[in-house]
This record gives sequence, structure tokens and C-alpha cells, in this order.
Amino acid sequence: MRHVDVLIIGGGPAGISAAIWCKRLGIDCLLLEEQSQLGGQLFNIFNEIIDYPGMRTKNGIEMQREMVKHFVEMDCLYEVNTKVLFIDERSKTVKVKKQAKEQEICYTYLILATGSSQRKLGVPGEQQMIDRGEVYSASADGERLKGKTVAIIGGGDRAFEGAHLLSSKAREVYLIHRSTRFKAREQYVERIISNPCIKVMTDTEVTAIHGDRHVTSIDLESKNKEYKNKEYKNKEYKNKEYKNLLVDAVLIRLGVAPNVDLIKGKVATAQNGLIVTDDVHQSSNPFIYAIGDSCTTPLFSSISSSAGQGAIVAKQLSSMLNI
Amino acid sequence: MRHVDVLIIGGGPAGISAAIWCKRLGIDCLLLEEQSQLGGQLFNIFNEIIDYPGMRTKNGIEMQREMVKHFVEMDCLYEVNTKVLFIDERSKTVKVKKQAKEQEICYTYLILATGSSQRKLGVPGEQQMIDRGEVYSASADGERLKGKTVAIIGGGDRAFEGAHLLSSKAREVYLIHRSTRFKAREQYVERIISNPCIKVMTDTEVTAIHGDRHVTSIDLESKNKEYKNKEYKNKEYKNKEYKNLLVDAVLIRLGVAPNVDLIKGKVATAQNGLIVTDDVHQSSNPFIYAIGDSCTTPLFSSISSSAGQGAIVAKQLSSMLNI
Repeated sequence: MRHVDVLIIGGGPAGISAAIWCKRLGIDCLLLEEQSQLGGQLFNIFNEIIDYPGMRTKNGIEMQREMVKHFVEMDCLYEVNTKVLFIDERSKTVKVKKQAKEQEICYTYLILATGSSQRKLGVPGEQQMIDRGEVYSASADGERLKGKTVAIIGGGDRAFEGAHLLSSKAREVYLIHRSTRFKAREQYVERIISNPCIKVMTDTEVTAIHGDRHVTSIDLESKNKEYKNKEYKNKEYKNKEYKNLLVDAVLIRLGVAPNVDLIKGKVATAQNGLIVTDDVHQSSNPFIYAIGDSCTTPLFSSISSSAGQGAIVAKQLSSMLNI
Repeated sequence: MRHVDVLIIGGGPAGISAAIWCKRLGIDCLLLEEQSQLGGQLFNIFNEIIDYPGMRTKNGIEMQREMVKHFVEMDCLYEVNTKVLFIDERSKTVKVKKQAKEQEICYTYLILATGSSQRKLGVPGEQQMIDRGEVYSASADGERLKGKTVAIIGGGDRAFEGAHLLSSKAREVYLIHRSTRFKAREQYVERIISNPCIKVMTDTEVTAIHGDRHVTSIDLESKNKEYKNKEYKNKEYKNKEYKNLLVDAVLIRLGVAPNVDLIKGKVATAQNGLIVTDDVHQSSNPFIYAIGDSCTTPLFSSISSSAGQGAIVAKQLSSMLNI
């Protein structure tokens, strides 16, 4: 069975950084990536990256290219198209699958850099919309959405921020949330509620997204409750009135969820699903470490901090491995 | 009196990152740097930087140039040649001096990014040697030191690592340490002690460095003890034999000390002098944060982690300031 001192699962910025650092420190290391390319969530950044000190890039793809170039130049060992099926933390072995072929890899230390994923609605038409490339950034796509009718789905900070940013550009903005309680910060909520250009629909679920070449409408199902919060009385919508809503674009802002299915029950996780780690990124299992968005709250997630965590964990493992 | 929401002291990678992130998040922020240029310890990196994911640079100066370019393009506010004389944490004010002119600046939050400094011997000839540029990296300057007699001063990991790296290049390597106890890891010590090309001198202090155009010799003062550790019996040096040692190069490896004089007694520090912070880099004073080498053990210090900490602290303060 193949053995490596350090096995990294996930090839986003955190995993790439950990691999570069392992290489630099002389650690025997292998990185596994499920997709066909390294980069992880960098592929979802469509606007300019201005917050990675020393390097500005037009978008995530350009950052991905630079990081992968560095990674490849350093001769870091990796496998793409390789899905981890199972982690056996007792025998310190993972079972992986690459092109229908399964194999086992044994590790001394495991680094989870599995990142997080955007939560989805899970309704008909959603995946088709994403596949068509109809994924917008409220900050970067203001011009593209000018004069359009836009639905933003969600009740957190990013949903409210998106609604705020687009309210001055789009013709109409709907903020649609399945509950009457918002996770967003109070001042965000107040700003939106008092904005006459934004229609807030609560207790309402999106059940389908329609459109062949681009989004044309969404189906809504309301719990038939009125939005009666006394503070926001001016915004009463009888949601039952809406069955189908004509829109030109849908922004799904349901937040992100850490990708921790592989490790569930094997290391301690917090209520929000994040892997609990100490200051050197060790999990509750002394041979398993976690870095990047699988252990960082979305509020503090960034390419910079993921890269920094990769450095810290590699230095820690170098010392553990006595290199 | 001038007021800023966030005042950053120190313009190394941590401070630069915090300022870029503050700007990106719309925080009113000012960075103060004592030296005439931003960059901090980047100016002390003479070898290639291969561990900042996405960016490889020939040396620290090149990295400094890229980071400062980014910083300036983002229109971050800063003052160089500006020394902080005093922090009054009760009135949340700092007194600064720029070209003989003193002024006070009031802050809502203070970020200490003061870094760390190489410890010095404090002996005659040392500063002249540094000013002449006789500062070597054991890993990068192997060729330059080929065939030379080299003295490495210190008893920690970096001293032993340096001795190990140079033993195959230099004609003679002396490892000189003022005590008989080493802070270095056991396996490092064993490797050096068993290396016949390295002369270990313990209980010995360097009292002067001689040389006009380059180092020619050093003065030593021993405590007249023999190095008698029974395990390393083969290495007995009567240190009193040495008064003056002819050497071509001196590598001072006494470790680093965090720059925390300004804040001593005002926030909690650990035994090693580092500022104690929580996971969002808040110190024991809720209005004072610390990032970079003033709060990171040398083992985990890196440009990547400093940049990452800058991102985290700015995001935290953005949320504290309700921006």
C-alpha cells in the first residue's frame, strides 16, 4: 500500500499552500483533488481579487493559474480526478477512486482542506442555470443587471448586501426568504426594509427556476402568512398572491456549508459544521489537521488566511515529523 | 486631534495586509511605519521566496516592491519615518514623532504589527559588519562561504541548522554558544555533535568582531569550563585556549525577539515576550489587536500567515465597527 507522511485532501488555496510548504520543508506529501483541476473555490470568483497582498488578479481563474504554476514549479505531488471515498482514521488509511479504479493510501498525518460549498436550493432548473453560467456577483455584475428584475434568495448578510448593492442598478429587486427571521445583521436588515426599491418576501420558498436560454421566472410557494413584524409593518406582502414571478436573474445566497461529510463523527465539529481545530490546526484527532474553509467561519474566510493556515500546518507537521 | 477608526503600527507584511483589507472593507485606517520604507523584515530576506502561494520572488526586496505597489494602488493611508513614542491605552491615543514634530492620534481600534527583531550580540564590530552587508544565509550563501572559516553564534535550531548546512561547504565551521545547554532540538544537536567538521564551543561568549573591509577574527571569552557532557565526550574543548579566533564570516543566530516595548505592561504577553491574542487576534485589551511576528512564535512565522492574520483582523474589526 502506498504510504505518504502527509496526505492533503482538497486542492484549493489552503491545500495548495500546505503542499507548497510541505515541499519547501522537505516533507513527503501528496495532494488529492476530486475535480479535474486544482483551484477549488477560486473558480467561483468572477470579480477582481484585490485582497491577496502583493498580487492582484482579474478574477479567480487568474489567481488559480498563478497558484497552480507555483505548485507545479515546486514539483508538488498531486492527483486530480481523485475522489476520497472513505477515511479510516484507525488504520490511518484513505480509500480513493480515480477513473473507476480504487486504491488505498496510508498516511502519517492527514490534512483536510476540503473547503466549503455554496448551499443550493435543490429545485428544478437550478443546476441548469448554474451550468449556463448565470452566476452573478452583486458587486461586480451591477452593469450586467442594470434595468433587470432580480430575485435574491436568502436571509443572511450576503443576501441583504446583494439586495442593497443591486437596488440602485436593477429595475426591481426581490429578496425572498423562507422564514420571517433573518440571520443578517440588524443594520443590514433595516437598510433593506426601509428601501422602497426592494420587495421583501418572507415565509416563501422558491420551488422551481424556469428558462431555457436564460432565467425567465421562478415558482414560489408561500406559507400564506403575512409579513407582520410590527417594526416593518410597512412591508406586508400576502405571499399567497405570488405563484409565479417573472425575473431575469436569480442570485442564490443561502450561505456556504463546510465540506465535512467525509470526516463526520471522526473529529469534533462545531454546531455550524466546521471542524474544530487548535491554533496549529490540529483537530480532535492528533493525526488529522484541518485548514481553510472546512474549519474557518465564512466571516473570516479568505485566500490569504487559507494560504497562511497552509503554512502553519506544514511547519507544525515538519516539527512533528522531526524533519 | 486626528482620529482614525483603525490605527496600524508597523508596515511589514502583516501591517500591509491589514491595511489593504481595511481599505477593501471600507474601514477608515492609517498605517504608521518607523522606517523610511514599508516592508519590515522583508528587507532581511536575501534568498528566493518560494513559499508565498502564487508568487515567487528573487528575494525580500522584490516581494516588498510587489506588496507596496499593491498597497499604494489601493490608496491605503500611511506615514513613514513616523515613530510611535507612546501608547495611552486609556485615552486610546498614541503619541508619534515625525521629523522632530510630535503629534497625537486617537484610535477606535489599534493593530500592533510591530514584528520582531533579530537578537544581537551587542559587541564592538557587530553593527559595522551588518552595515557592510556581511549578513549570510546558511541555505543561500553556501557557495559564497565555500572554503571559508565560519563562526555561527547561538544554541537554537537555526544555529544548528546553519552549522549543518555549511559543514559541507565551508573549510571550518565553529558553533559558539554561551552556555552548555542548547535550545535546539535533540536530533539537530546530535547531528552536529557527531559531525567531525564542526567544532562546538560551549560556555563561550563572543566579545568583539574584528575586520575593516570584512570580518577577519573574533574575540572569545570562555568560562574556562570544559565541555564534558559524557555523551559527547569526544568533543572536549578547553575553551580557555581560545582568545582570538581567525574567521572569515560570522553568522549570528541568537533568535528573534518580538518588538513589544511599546505595549509592555498594557496587554498580556507570554513568557517568550509574544503578545497573547485570541483566534481573531484580539489582545487582553479589547481595543488592541496584534498580528504577525509580535504575536506569532518564530516557528510559525511566515509571510503567508502574517498576510492571513491581516485579513482576519480587518474582517473582525469591520464587524466590530458595524461597517
